[in-house]
Amino acid sequence: MTSPSISPSANSSQGWFSYPIRVQPHHTDYGGIVWHGTYITWLEAARVEALAAVGIEFADLVAIGVDLPVVDLSLRYHRSLRLGDRAIVYARLLPTKGVRLVWDYSIEPLDNEASNRAESGVHKSARQKGGSDRSYVTGQVTLAAIDPKRGKVLRRYPPIFTEALEKLRA
Amino acid sequence: MTSPSISPSANSSQGWFSYPIRVQPHHTDYGGIVWHGTYITWLEAARVEALAAVGIEFADLVAIGVDLPVVDLSLRYHRSLRLGDRAIVYARLLPTKGVRLVWDYSIEPLDNEASNRAESGVHKSARQKGGSDRSYVTGQVTLAAIDPKRGKVLRRYPPIFTEALEKLRA
Amino acid sequence: MTSPSISPSANSSQGWFSYPIRVQPHHTDYGGIVWHGTYITWLEAARVEALAAVGIEFADLVAIGVDLPVVDLSLRYHRSLRLGDRAIVYARLLPTKGVRLVWDYSIEPLDNEASNRAESGVHKSARQKGGSDRSYVTGQVTLAAIDPKRGKVLRRYPPIFTEALEKLRA
Amino acid sequence: MTSPSISPSANSSQGWFSYPIRVQPHHTDYGGIVWHGTYITWLEAARVEALAAVGIEFADLVAIGVDLPVVDLSLRYHRSLRLGDRAIVYARLLPTKGVRLVWDYSIEPLDNEASNRAESGVHKSARQKGGSDRSYVTGQVTLAAIDPKRGKVLRRYPPIFTEALEKLRA
Repeated sequence: MTSPSISPSANSSQGWFSYPIRVQPHHTDYGGIVWHGTYITWLEAARVEALAAVGIEFADLVAIGVDLPVVDLSLRYHRSLRLGDRAIVYARLLPTKGVRLVWDYSIEPLDNEASNRAESGVHKSARQKGGSDRSYVTGQVTLAAIDPKRGKVLRRYPPIFTEALEKLRA
Repeated sequence: MTSPSISPSANSSQGWFSYPIRVQPHHTDYGGIVWHGTYITWLEAARVEALAAVGIEFADLVAIGVDLPVVDLSLRYHRSLRLGDRAIVYARLLPTKGVRLVWDYSIEPLDNEASNRAESGVHKSARQKGGSDRSYVTGQVTLAAIDPKRGKVLRRYPPIFTEALEKLRA
Repeated sequence: MTSPSISPSANSSQGWFSYPIRVQPHHTDYGGIVWHGTYITWLEAARVEALAAVGIEFADLVAIGVDLPVVDLSLRYHRSLRLGDRAIVYARLLPTKGVRLVWDYSIEPLDNEASNRAESGVHKSARQKGGSDRSYVTGQVTLAAIDPKRGKVLRRYPPIFTEALEKLRA
Repeated sequence: MTSPSISPSANSSQGWFSYPIRVQPHHTDYGGIVWHGTYITWLEAARVEALAAVGIEFADLVAIGVDLPVVDLSLRYHRSLRLGDRAIVYARLLPTKGVRLVWDYSIEPLDNEASNRAESGVHKSARQKGGSDRSYVTGQVTLAAIDPKRGKVLRRYPPIFTEALEKLRA
């Protein structure tokens, strides 16, 4: 007996990574909806799994002296998710100069197509503008790259990380 | 491009439900390990998904007037999980009288076998005693069944819920 | 034996409310600093306590049919707070039209003056522009006013709430 | 204008430390009550502040190579706290042998006496047995003492820590 299998997946042709979520009791607040800060945990998990999907384990990155603290975060809440709801966090890297990473997000309903194809990558041709009418939450999160031991901003990434980012942006 | 697919699954022949987890930054604390309260969220998700696997959506249960608040919780922490670690939350319902549910848990490493077979159910013949030498955390969580509107303990479950519990215990 | 007493306080002459915080283990992440999502909990507590300081208990507000969900949130992270650090969340209501509330925030070190006077209100003449060079985090949070039962945006606030907001903005 | 001042305090004659709490939206769940895992954060804060009240800053302890991970946790949930509720976390150290610390807890209503005297220490002669009829939650949390760099259990505490513990138990 197996429950429906929904796993993180990336679709390199579109540059969007999809991360499925499901609202558990601890995500909700007194209003019966997802507490607004809960989304931050999902955005974080989505970008960690997006990096993992192109071969970069975040823990390994930290171990070699590259940390990626959040320096800027902006979110817009359009509609509420409720207890038991399933949804997809869509995440993509925006083009940036220098060593900042800007992630663009849209959390959207898990539609039938996504549900059927969740393991093999999701085509999102209909929502390329970033954020659709159906979005629960849209936003951007900016990360700096630092050397955590010295507390200094990095001038450049390790080559292996640069290559992985290119895959994500492809 | 698809990341390794690991999904919740249940194995009715053993009565254990397995729920895969992965340590994200927000799960950790200053010590670089999972903060001890984080495990509570995983135990909750595991039992919600175990119920879903036998046809009971927790949100539906609440909607028909059955809530399952935690009345007792005991956990033992044996070893630490660290950033990026993957593991499996094993959960099963213990036999009980009346309308209390006692969940038994063991959080264990994601071994190779589990990794390969995670979608189709995990045989755990070697660890039936509950908690193995390799457990990170073991524990029990007891739930009462109440009618949230009246704030009263239920005398009996709705039949559809009783049947689902029998499937979980089978 | 009494630990240093630090309590929420408001200074109506400046329009800023001050809410003292202290970094506990569960606020931190693997980097030894406050996890970026933790700040959201402090911003929320600061605005709830600011309302309480002018006579509006948030729970009462919800009970009479006024909820204040977050519709927009933007934060900038300037410096990190670490385990054990104390700081002050400064919060004030910006002038707005209609029934949206825009809270302006700056989280700053607990300096000696603030420490000595924390119970009686903090003068902040040096930082009126909003966000000082010493800020850990600055940001804004926008709330809508809705009737949670009908799921509709309110056209106007209850008079008692309008009066309380005027006190906060005074 | 100052909100009611409620601060952590210890009463060495009784051995109980009191830590006031207040239920914010992020502490609640869909049921309108405090989510069961939230209490873990308050228990942690209460013991960190109890140590601070006898001169031990937890961050300093970690800095000198003593960490106190939780190895055992058991909680009983008797009654629910709701949005906006105030309460007191009572915490005391139980007598133990060796380098384990066992904290005993009872979370209780903020009664009138406590409210009036919260800053100067709370006499709890009526509830010495640990947990009263009015408790929301009772429980125990056991900590081990380890050297985090070497990952080994400590044989003994630094003398300064032993002295502080004696003050707490006095």
